[in-house]
Amino acid sequence: MSVPVGIVGFRGYSGAELVRILSRHPGIEPVLLEHRESEDRPRPLGGNGLRRIAYSIENASAAGLAAVLLATPPEASMDLALGLLEAGIKVIDLSGAFRLGTVENYKRWYKEEHTQPELLAEAVYGLPEFCRSRIPSARLISNPGCYPTAANLAIKPLIEAGAIARSCGIVCDAKSGVSGAGRKASLKTSFCEVADNFSAYSILDHRHVPEVLRTSGLDEAEFCFTAQLIPIPRGILETIYFRSSESISSADDLLKIYEKRYSEEPFVRLYSPGQIPDVAAVSYQNFCDLGIKFDPRTRRAVVVSVIDNLVKGAAGQAVQNLNLALGISETTGLL
Amino acid sequence: MSVPVGIVGFRGYSGAELVRILSRHPGIEPVLLEHRESEDRPRPLGGNGLRRIAYSIENASAAGLAAVLLATPPEASMDLALGLLEAGIKVIDLSGAFRLGTVENYKRWYKEEHTQPELLAEAVYGLPEFCRSRIPSARLISNPGCYPTAANLAIKPLIEAGAIARSCGIVCDAKSGVSGAGRKASLKTSFCEVADNFSAYSILDHRHVPEVLRTSGLDEAEFCFTAQLIPIPRGILETIYFRSSESISSADDLLKIYEKRYSEEPFVRLYSPGQIPDVAAVSYQNFCDLGIKFDPRTRRAVVVSVIDNLVKGAAGQAVQNLNLALGISETTGLL
Amino acid sequence: MSVPVGIVGFRGYSGAELVRILSRHPGIEPVLLEHRESEDRPRPLGGNGLRRIAYSIENASAAGLAAVLLATPPEASMDLALGLLEAGIKVIDLSGAFRLGTVENYKRWYKEEHTQPELLAEAVYGLPEFCRSRIPSARLISNPGCYPTAANLAIKPLIEAGAIARSCGIVCDAKSGVSGAGRKASLKTSFCEVADNFSAYSILDHRHVPEVLRTSGLDEAEFCFTAQLIPIPRGILETIYFRSSESISSADDLLKIYEKRYSEEPFVRLYSPGQIPDVAAVSYQNFCDLGIKFDPRTRRAVVVSVIDNLVKGAAGQAVQNLNLALGISETTGLL
Amino acid sequence: MSVPVGIVGFRGYSGAELVRILSRHPGIEPVLLEHRESEDRPRPLGGNGLRRIAYSIENASAAGLAAVLLATPPEASMDLALGLLEAGIKVIDLSGAFRLGTVENYKRWYKEEHTQPELLAEAVYGLPEFCRSRIPSARLISNPGCYPTAANLAIKPLIEAGAIARSCGIVCDAKSGVSGAGRKASLKTSFCEVADNFSAYSILDHRHVPEVLRTSGLDEAEFCFTAQLIPIPRGILETIYFRSSESISSADDLLKIYEKRYSEEPFVRLYSPGQIPDVAAVSYQNFCDLGIKFDPRTRRAVVVSVIDNLVKGAAGQAVQNLNLALGISETTGLL
Repeated sequence: MSVPVGIVGFRGYSGAELVRILSRHPGIEPVLLEHRESEDRPRPLGGNGLRRIAYSIENASAAGLAAVLLATPPEASMDLALGLLEAGIKVIDLSGAFRLGTVENYKRWYKEEHTQPELLAEAVYGLPEFCRSRIPSARLISNPGCYPTAANLAIKPLIEAGAIARSCGIVCDAKSGVSGAGRKASLKTSFCEVADNFSAYSILDHRHVPEVLRTSGLDEAEFCFTAQLIPIPRGILETIYFRSSESISSADDLLKIYEKRYSEEPFVRLYSPGQIPDVAAVSYQNFCDLGIKFDPRTRRAVVVSVIDNLVKGAAGQAVQNLNLALGISETTGLL
Repeated sequence: MSVPVGIVGFRGYSGAELVRILSRHPGIEPVLLEHRESEDRPRPLGGNGLRRIAYSIENASAAGLAAVLLATPPEASMDLALGLLEAGIKVIDLSGAFRLGTVENYKRWYKEEHTQPELLAEAVYGLPEFCRSRIPSARLISNPGCYPTAANLAIKPLIEAGAIARSCGIVCDAKSGVSGAGRKASLKTSFCEVADNFSAYSILDHRHVPEVLRTSGLDEAEFCFTAQLIPIPRGILETIYFRSSESISSADDLLKIYEKRYSEEPFVRLYSPGQIPDVAAVSYQNFCDLGIKFDPRTRRAVVVSVIDNLVKGAAGQAVQNLNLALGISETTGLL
Repeated sequence: MSVPVGIVGFRGYSGAELVRILSRHPGIEPVLLEHRESEDRPRPLGGNGLRRIAYSIENASAAGLAAVLLATPPEASMDLALGLLEAGIKVIDLSGAFRLGTVENYKRWYKEEHTQPELLAEAVYGLPEFCRSRIPSARLISNPGCYPTAANLAIKPLIEAGAIARSCGIVCDAKSGVSGAGRKASLKTSFCEVADNFSAYSILDHRHVPEVLRTSGLDEAEFCFTAQLIPIPRGILETIYFRSSESISSADDLLKIYEKRYSEEPFVRLYSPGQIPDVAAVSYQNFCDLGIKFDPRTRRAVVVSVIDNLVKGAAGQAVQNLNLALGISETTGLL
Repeated sequence: MSVPVGIVGFRGYSGAELVRILSRHPGIEPVLLEHRESEDRPRPLGGNGLRRIAYSIENASAAGLAAVLLATPPEASMDLALGLLEAGIKVIDLSGAFRLGTVENYKRWYKEEHTQPELLAEAVYGLPEFCRSRIPSARLISNPGCYPTAANLAIKPLIEAGAIARSCGIVCDAKSGVSGAGRKASLKTSFCEVADNFSAYSILDHRHVPEVLRTSGLDEAEFCFTAQLIPIPRGILETIYFRSSESISSADDLLKIYEKRYSEEPFVRLYSPGQIPDVAAVSYQNFCDLGIKFDPRTRRAVVVSVIDNLVKGAAGQAVQNLNLALGISETTGLL
């Protein structure tokens, strides 16, 4: 008895990942919603066997979709969400359209007017580790950005526990695989520009910064963020630097804070001090892995946080939210 | 006393390689000819110190250019060549515009009319190892394609020596790095589509096939060619399969044919039987390296031919031709 | 109710892939058998939650293992198989130890004496598409090599249908990702030697050749094989060249032969003529995808066959065989 | 009139880069000194035409070597340096053997006793931008480490100018291509472990840290360093975070400090504020490129420093030092 769930933007990298995950989900039937023409990959005769229907509210309703996942750019998401919600279909949006809380914040960071301020106010932020209780009843879930997911899971428990000397600032040096830029023709992400290369972008002004601030409670002066492009298709590693408060005297002290906060969390994994996760540790998986290094002489700490940007950073977390929204066990299809 | 030589298309991969090579050439001053707006890379304050001038026949003449290298698409090359030649400036064209000898051949493989049939007839094919004598006096030199350079250097001496049983056919399985597709925004050559992947294209109908046939003397039924994309920026490896004629009984017999033909050639290198060159052997260099494997029981032979597609397959060979055209020692700036 | 199945060599690439696949298999519990010390990857606290036991026949029996998968080198597989079989435990061996049928053949290609000639004679070759009926009752299943899997699935139906002019020879130009070389410290497969490179090896004398001959029925003079290293972790693409017999006059004629042979096969996928699969089409999946190009003027044909070398070329096919051996539906855990 | 200069360790990545650079140097003849057996790459018949001689003091003297470049591990460099110096041959050592000034410092970071304390005391640190005057008369030049070169060129002018609020600490998040780990068989640097991956190592305790402190004048509490592995063969990018002192109110203020310090330096290039260099900008070149981002509201600054680890981070800088040591113009062979 599978519940049909629609996917808009299934040709993009996050959308294709939704298809990959949901094709193995025992309780959900993914339905491909054709919204815009774009380039399909060559396919075997018979294709992948999934239902494909033209996008319209009528078709979505007729297909009995319990929810629609929007793997679309923010402008498209703003266009599509209202109609679906009015038709009684839950929406999980993977774009940045509904993450920033206020139209002012959206305009500042996305350089455009927000066209759905009421939905922006209504949207529930879908970071289950910190917002789980609000997700089941939400009509519109805003799936977190990839960088903020890795950053907030690393930082927020330490902030809450008072483990960080905030006045010294937190530096988050973030690196992402290229799929984070989306599936499109662009010279900047063409193979010969990216391969054998490594580059920084959006230094100090990335649009994911306000999402970290909003969730973690840090202010701008306390948080310093740089994004960088790794020549790999997928994966994020964030190296997070801070000085600990005086209450911390060892890596184990930090580990204990994480253990207390995450002992029941299925998708956050902790490493022994000295063991550091790498990008490959979470490839194609919905985990966020955390490793710790601490120098007691200087109270300098480094936390390494890794996720697969397409899974815990996008499609996997969206399915986690979808499970919560549909009353399915949270880890279904994700382990 | 450097001779000024113009480069059109210096932002593309072949054009940038011309700049790289000529910047170290003791007898030539590269002059960048701005022809079309496109995206520059970030540059240090002060840039690279080369002269940049807007493209026009007047400017080219005023700058006293001895020659112009066209690293442009075929249509642009057809547009530009005539004016330069009329102004008395030699042209070396790196595109396919002037390689195929006849307008019929051009139309068949490039699917467009040739707009300069007289120049097509006049152009000298710039494969120095086989056409050296005609190059110094040529006004218009057509620089060979990358795949045909590697193929013809491997095949032609064996054809001439009667070492191949042609009726069984020659298979050339060719692989190229991504820069062969040019510097442009394209989904097909975007990082995430190419990385972790390997793909075949233009199977049996690549437009470089007629160039191999024209130089080698093979006919279509005798030569079977597939192009494939390696997820690396640069380099070509061709694996060439044939059955030898009965006159050949060992790899050494084949090696001797090559040694006789190439003993004086500065840019063709031979390997001992059993040693096989790889793409890295010729990276950033103007060599074509050849390795041989032979099975005397079946008379099956395999020749591996490698070049850097941007050097011996494009810019390096163009500089080799430029040296010949300007009366400079052929290897200058290339060793 | 999961059946426990042991894995020896779980730290290697094929072994790790067995763990990945079986961890999601609803009917099997993977049990890690510690056989030799080697390097584990860093692991989260709590690890992956799988049972790990020291390898011994006693432990294997006590654990009630229904079968053991050997992801070990041939010498280790020869050592281990007999004891397991004597204890009544089915064995699926992923090495080349039991593939070649005779000790003479083994010695010629593996340059060592075979130490278990009776097991060699008994072993059933585990290519389900051609040997399915013999697998359920087999005690010892020899899982096919990666290159032969892709080659035989492409070639054998055409041979059987008389579609190939065999006297002209079949050329199989094979390319593999680096995991095919195993997980070990080696300069040849170190990152800086492989990246930005492409190289041919074992030209005309690869030890997978006799496996293709044995299954396809070709003789040595008819089949010409070269292996090459793609700078990617996983995936195989084989470009197969032949001249068709006179009975074939179009790509559709070849497609029909494949359709007839494979219409019921869950893991072979065919493409429309003109559509060519690439390595990414089968990444992390148990499919073999086949694409066809044909030139009616010359009767030259090219078939492109792709698999993931770690899945259909190793662990996935082993699980397919395991399903058959244990009476589980063949596709379980593999779609 | 070329001066012969010996290279020990020419098969490693730094050694091969020395060969590449010196083969084009108009004033120097590279001589390969065979010191230890290890694996050569396949070579064309005729090889690369360079002199190869067995390593011994006698042979080095007989060959009239003006200097020897040691591209060897620290222990080998300690063994070799004394004999060469006693024979009157200048030594430029590319290892860490002679960089740290004191035997205590060496023991702390390299975990071994230093066997040549007098040479350690005598060695001149070869960072020309800050130690140029001492290099021509030095017998033993210690070529800087790759990470410290990129870090000190970025940090030291700002420290000298009082532009950094040191009490807040400087974070240097460093990333390097894999050749930095040397040419050897190792699982950690094997292709499948590195590709599609990104990993941090030596967090807070990398042996290059004391080299940065010694040159920059920072103390341990002020400088926080993490090294990370990029899946590319060569290149370093360091992202350096600090809070500026109150004297700085714009990126231009920082740029002016660099311009003043580096206006005469041939190998340090500055970018306009907002332009950020990437690894490709300096590939195969001896430049260090610096880009700046500054947020005036928070006085947070980020400097991006890039070098090619094998050129300005090793062989190129060694040739720069060699030129200075032999009285050749500093940029010869390096532009």
